[in-house]
Amino acid sequence: MDDELFEKGLQIRKEVVGAEYVERSLAQADDFSRDFQRLVTEYCWGAGWGRDALSRRDRSLLNLAMISILGRNAEFKLHLRGALRNGCTKDEIQDTLIQMAIYAGIPAGVEAFRLAKEVFAEVEADAS
Amino acid sequence: MDDELFEKGLQIRKEVVGAEYVERSLAQADDFSRDFQRLVTEYCWGAGWGRDALSRRDRSLLNLAMISILGRNAEFKLHLRGALRNGCTKDEIQDTLIQMAIYAGIPAGVEAFRLAKEVFAEVEADAS
Amino acid sequence: MDDELFEKGLQIRKEVVGAEYVERSLAQADDFSRDFQRLVTEYCWGAGWGRDALSRRDRSLLNLAMISILGRNAEFKLHLRGALRNGCTKDEIQDTLIQMAIYAGIPAGVEAFRLAKEVFAEVEADAS
Amino acid sequence: MDDELFEKGLQIRKEVVGAEYVERSLAQADDFSRDFQRLVTEYCWGAGWGRDALSRRDRSLLNLAMISILGRNAEFKLHLRGALRNGCTKDEIQDTLIQMAIYAGIPAGVEAFRLAKEVFAEVEADAS
Amino acid sequence: MDDELFEKGLQIRKEVVGAEYVERSLAQADDFSRDFQRLVTEYCWGAGWGRDALSRRDRSLLNLAMISILGRNAEFKLHLRGALRNGCTKDEIQDTLIQMAIYAGIPAGVEAFRLAKEVFAEVEADAS
Amino acid sequence: MDDELFEKGLQIRKEVVGAEYVERSLAQADDFSRDFQRLVTEYCWGAGWGRDALSRRDRSLLNLAMISILGRNAEFKLHLRGALRNGCTKDEIQDTLIQMAIYAGIPAGVEAFRLAKEVFAEVEADAS
Repeated sequence: MDDELFEKGLQIRKEVVGAEYVERSLAQADDFSRDFQRLVTEYCWGAGWGRDALSRRDRSLLNLAMISILGRNAEFKLHLRGALRNGCTKDEIQDTLIQMAIYAGIPAGVEAFRLAKEVFAEVEADAS
Repeated sequence: MDDELFEKGLQIRKEVVGAEYVERSLAQADDFSRDFQRLVTEYCWGAGWGRDALSRRDRSLLNLAMISILGRNAEFKLHLRGALRNGCTKDEIQDTLIQMAIYAGIPAGVEAFRLAKEVFAEVEADAS
Repeated sequence: MDDELFEKGLQIRKEVVGAEYVERSLAQADDFSRDFQRLVTEYCWGAGWGRDALSRRDRSLLNLAMISILGRNAEFKLHLRGALRNGCTKDEIQDTLIQMAIYAGIPAGVEAFRLAKEVFAEVEADAS
Repeated sequence: MDDELFEKGLQIRKEVVGAEYVERSLAQADDFSRDFQRLVTEYCWGAGWGRDALSRRDRSLLNLAMISILGRNAEFKLHLRGALRNGCTKDEIQDTLIQMAIYAGIPAGVEAFRLAKEVFAEVEADAS
Repeated sequence: MDDELFEKGLQIRKEVVGAEYVERSLAQADDFSRDFQRLVTEYCWGAGWGRDALSRRDRSLLNLAMISILGRNAEFKLHLRGALRNGCTKDEIQDTLIQMAIYAGIPAGVEAFRLAKEVFAEVEADAS
Repeated sequence: MDDELFEKGLQIRKEVVGAEYVERSLAQADDFSRDFQRLVTEYCWGAGWGRDALSRRDRSLLNLAMISILGRNAEFKLHLRGALRNGCTKDEIQDTLIQMAIYAGIPAGVEAFRLAKEVFAEVEADAS
């Protein structure tokens, strides 16, 4: 593998989803999951997020739409926190989820708004 | 229905996917498809695209990612032309499709890059 | 938006998924979710469910099949209660889920039957 | 396998999608596809369509919604012809596709209306 | 239905997902779910798993990939236990999930590795 | 990127989908598609297919099932030719597609068998 790309991906991954979460994921990796953790970090975060033509804010909004459609709720919540870290406003997230609900259907929208409400409540609780 | 929202949607829809295409869609609508054409214009283009918190460039990039995942090729090509009209650069589109391929899988990416190549060739042919 | 269509949608939505649930959804809506709640009520329930050519029983059966395929479990349970309210019999629901399992695959069917069992138990508990 | 269920399924399959199509499918079956053709006939058409609690009209409308979401265009067109054979009116089909577009997203609806237009034109051409 | 195929399917189903689970599923079946349980046993396990050209190990790996993509988490966990019963090694499962993550996207992979970790912990706890 | 992994992936990719196809894909790559072609070769073929715990025959069968579910027909045909190159027998492919049809639904199976028939005819024509 490519250590430079891994380090770049690791840095971005920590900044977006939180250093604590990433360090725990890597520390808990065992023989079964280590290669996958490495792949996620290097390819998804290094080769994908590390590209130049889109901002992190752009990538967060794309991810919220995509992960909603793919129906992966735990990942959606993680990336919603990431979107807030990347400076996306609530208005931008709202418009993204409404656009997604129109293109991917109302039930996907209902689920996304329900999960978003949970995340906002958790973030507020963390902050207080 | 809401005539004001319909007119707003009609205006945006024409600007994004091309007046000629939209006028043909509406003119060809018959008893079977008229209500759906109306719904698309008012709901998708008026109530969705007509919102303020995202730019048209943002919405085009979201749509390319979402419509790829949903696997609707004709719509993808239409919205890729729309993305160019909305000022998205080829670099932004490239980064969007790579991000999408990582999150939704390589075959979705292969298909999107193949369709994009077709659209770029058509657009160049139109321009010459 | 179109107030008349909203009111029509609100009425149907309450009758199908229960007035209490709908009133809570609307009352709990905040700046982030209010527009989406409005959109769901007006478009999904007004412009969709408010059409004439299918009965509510027909629409409930369609929804059970569609929402199963889309994999949205909370919405599935809500609409299964709605199907009972709309007069669908257990035999009709059973045939719908078996048809869905054949066309969308056995795991979708296993999940739908598991969720249906939960809903029937809850409905019986409510009634006793 | 169960010959009685196969024969029942074969009968229904011919009545719904057309005897000519079914006979060609079975006649063209070779060592590679014969078991699958048998499975489709017995399992899908016998054990599924052969059940009593839904009418053929109900099952056709369910299939149009489900097969749209699943994105299988050739099967969609086949089942749209079947829906007409089963007595579904154009108004019922229109309402089904609009309901589907709201629950599964506008691009699925655009594709379904485009395919339906093709089928209606083919059916009219056949009839003239 | 075909009693012989049902008995064959029942035998395989018990061997793969565990006799206790299968007997409970069938014993708990009521008027609503009995036909579906019968269908799953006869078609999925008899007509599908009962075929000769693939081993049970092959079928388990296929199922892990397919059920991940379909997003059915409870079924995924059941079939992961089945894969271990069918002699799949952890290395084979790891390679299958990495292949799946590349073809169906990173979020599907993250979910599958998370669920696998849960199953391995449960299996170890059962064994101790 | 990692040149060694790229070279390993390139080698496998050529052996599985054909050197001519791969060389054409890479030769035709332009500024828009070059990075994606590189990513596919290194990530999908090097980091994925290059792993040790599954055989190429295993990976081909997984891909046929996965790409069918994902609904990417051109990729399915490419990988079906790859499966034959990797030594999968027609019986193994048949069993894989039947298993897939049961788990992901009959329409996915109908499409896969239709595409397979096309590929087998093309392969025979090439050979004669």
